[in-house]
Amino acid sequence: MSQKIVLSGIKPSGSPHLGNYAGMLQPALALARRTDCQAYYFIADYHALNSVQDPARLKRLLHEVAATYLALGLDPARAVFYRQSAVPEIFEISQALACVCPKGFMNRAHAYKAAVAQNLEKGLRDPDAGVNMGLFNYPLLMAADILAFDTDLVPVGRDQKQHVEYARDLAIRFNKTFGDTFRVPEISLRADLPALPGTDGRKMSKSYDNTIALFDPPQVLKHRIMKLKTDSKGEGAAKDPSDSLLVTYFQQVASPSESKIFIEDFIAGMGYGTAKHRLFEKMEALLSEPRRIYTDLMADPSTIDRTLAEGATKARQKAGQVRDRMRRSVGIS
Amino acid sequence: MSQKIVLSGIKPSGSPHLGNYAGMLQPALALARRTDCQAYYFIADYHALNSVQDPARLKRLLHEVAATYLALGLDPARAVFYRQSAVPEIFEISQALACVCPKGFMNRAHAYKAAVAQNLEKGLRDPDAGVNMGLFNYPLLMAADILAFDTDLVPVGRDQKQHVEYARDLAIRFNKTFGDTFRVPEISLRADLPALPGTDGRKMSKSYDNTIALFDPPQVLKHRIMKLKTDSKGEGAAKDPSDSLLVTYFQQVASPSESKIFIEDFIAGMGYGTAKHRLFEKMEALLSEPRRIYTDLMADPSTIDRTLAEGATKARQKAGQVRDRMRRSVGIS
Repeated sequence: MSQKIVLSGIKPSGSPHLGNYAGMLQPALALARRTDCQAYYFIADYHALNSVQDPARLKRLLHEVAATYLALGLDPARAVFYRQSAVPEIFEISQALACVCPKGFMNRAHAYKAAVAQNLEKGLRDPDAGVNMGLFNYPLLMAADILAFDTDLVPVGRDQKQHVEYARDLAIRFNKTFGDTFRVPEISLRADLPALPGTDGRKMSKSYDNTIALFDPPQVLKHRIMKLKTDSKGEGAAKDPSDSLLVTYFQQVASPSESKIFIEDFIAGMGYGTAKHRLFEKMEALLSEPRRIYTDLMADPSTIDRTLAEGATKARQKAGQVRDRMRRSVGIS
Repeated sequence: MSQKIVLSGIKPSGSPHLGNYAGMLQPALALARRTDCQAYYFIADYHALNSVQDPARLKRLLHEVAATYLALGLDPARAVFYRQSAVPEIFEISQALACVCPKGFMNRAHAYKAAVAQNLEKGLRDPDAGVNMGLFNYPLLMAADILAFDTDLVPVGRDQKQHVEYARDLAIRFNKTFGDTFRVPEISLRADLPALPGTDGRKMSKSYDNTIALFDPPQVLKHRIMKLKTDSKGEGAAKDPSDSLLVTYFQQVASPSESKIFIEDFIAGMGYGTAKHRLFEKMEALLSEPRRIYTDLMADPSTIDRTLAEGATKARQKAGQVRDRMRRSVGIS
C-alpha cells in the first residue's frame, strides 16, 4: 500500500519557545518520522503576508521557523519541506476552486467572523473595516494548500478544523461539477492540549514576554529557569507537583519515566534550587545540539534557502500533476 | 521613447457577429496595429470559468474567439496574444494584491452588487445566494491581469472603468506599503458606441437570435441579409437612410466614402434588393478571406494553440519580471 500523504502548514512566527515545542513542534516532528506517511510541511508565507508587511521581518521569520524545524530534527530527505510561495501551482488551483466556492463559505469563516464581531463591538459602522482580501480569501487559499498535493490527512486542532472541512467541501463540489479531480482529504483532529503556562502563569506567549525560548544561549536559559517563582517551601519539605511550573516544564522535555522520578523526588522534598538545576540540565541535554544547529543555520541562511528550494522542487512536481489534472477537468489545457 | 504597453482582455464568448465587430473587434485590431504601442491581448479563460463550467464548451469558445482575432488580422508577431491561464504569475500577483486590498473594494464592485440586487429583488433571504468566489474576486484577478505586465494604458468602456480604477488603487497601495513595485496604469475611456441593432431592431445579441454572424457560409449570410425587413417602397422611390438596417450595417463594414455613395444611391431610389446585394457583396469582400482563415483554424485548432503558446512565452517573460519584482518587495524571494 502506498504511503498516506499528510500535510501541515506552519506559520512563520519567529523563534520558538517551550509552548510551541509542546503544542506543535513535537507532534509535527513525530508525524514526520512515521514511515507509513509521506509528510508535507509548508511554511505559509503568503498567509503571513496578510499581517507581516515588512520584507526584512518576513524573511527573518521564515528563516527562524525553518531553522527551528531543521534543528529539531525534521529530515528534509524524508518530509517534503517547502515554502508555499515557491509552489505557484497553489495559486492557480485556488483560482479554480473559487469558481465552485459559494461566497457564503467565506462569510462564515471563523477568522473573518471574528474580525467583523470585533468591528461591531467597537461600534464601527463598517463591519469590514480593516479586513483585507487576504484575510477574507484565507480559507480558499488554505483549501488549495491542501488539495494541491492529493493530501489524505490533515492533522489539525479544533480551531483549524473548518479549513479542512472547506477543503473537503470544495473538492467534492469541484469533482461533482468537473469530474473526479481532487482527492478529498480526511480531518485528523488533534486532542487540544491545554496551553502551556508561561513564567507568570498566563498562557505562554511572546506577547506576554513570559516564554522560555528554546534557542536562547544556555546562560539566558539558566537565568530564566532560576528566576521561576516558587513558594517558600525549603529543602526537605514535601511539594505539590500539581501546582508547579517546574514539573509542568520538566514533563514537556523529559520521558514519562524521567518525569515520574522527578515528581517522586519533588514530593519527597527535593529543594527548588535542585529541581531548577535538574530542569535546566534536562533542557540543555535536549537543546544544546539543536541550538548549535539553529545558530549555525541562522548565521548563514543560504543552507535553509537551499533546503527549502529542494523541497519546493519535490512539492512542485506533485502540485504540477494535480494542477494539470485540474486544468484538464475544466477544459484549460 | 519606449512603446506604451496597452492591454485588453477578451471574453471567450464564441463565434462573433457584426455587433461584436463594430463594438469591440475593430477598435481592438486598430489598436494592435499602432506602432507607438505594444499591445497585450489576453483571453480571460479563468474569468470565463465562473460561468462556463463545461470543459468542451470552454475549449470551443476559446478557439472561436482566438480564431476570430487571428482571422481578422491580429498579428501575433506584433501583439502579445495569450491565454490568461497560461501565465500563472498572474495568480500569484493576485494573491499578493489581496494583502493590500480592502474587502470593501469587492463589496462595491459592479458585478457583485448587481448580483446582490438581483437576489434582493427576487426576495431571497441570502443576498449572496448563487454568488461564487470567482465572481466576488473578479476585480482582484483583473487587477493582477493588468499590473502583471507593467501596463501603461487600458482602453475600456464605461462599464469596465471600475476594474482599472481598482487596479490603479491597488498598485498605489501596494507601492506605498512595500515600495515602488507596480506601474500605475492609466484608463483610456472609449466612447461608448451605441449598440448595433439586430435584425429585429433590438440590440444585436446571440440570446435574441437576431445576429449577422461574421463567419457563416456565404449562402447563409446572403439569406440573412436578403430576409432583412424593409418597408414597401419600390425601386425609384426615395428612402430614409436614417431608419434602415441596411445603411447601418453597410456603415460598419465600408469606408466612409463608400458609405456616402451608398446613402446617396439609397436616397436616390435604389431598390431594396439592389441595396441588399451591395451590402452582401461588401461584406463578402471584407469577410471571405477572414472566413477562410477562421474555418481553417477551427478545422485544426493546433495552430491556434501553438500561436497562443508562443504568445504565452512572451507574456510570461514580462509577467515573470514583474512577479520577481513583487516578490522582492514583500520579502519572498
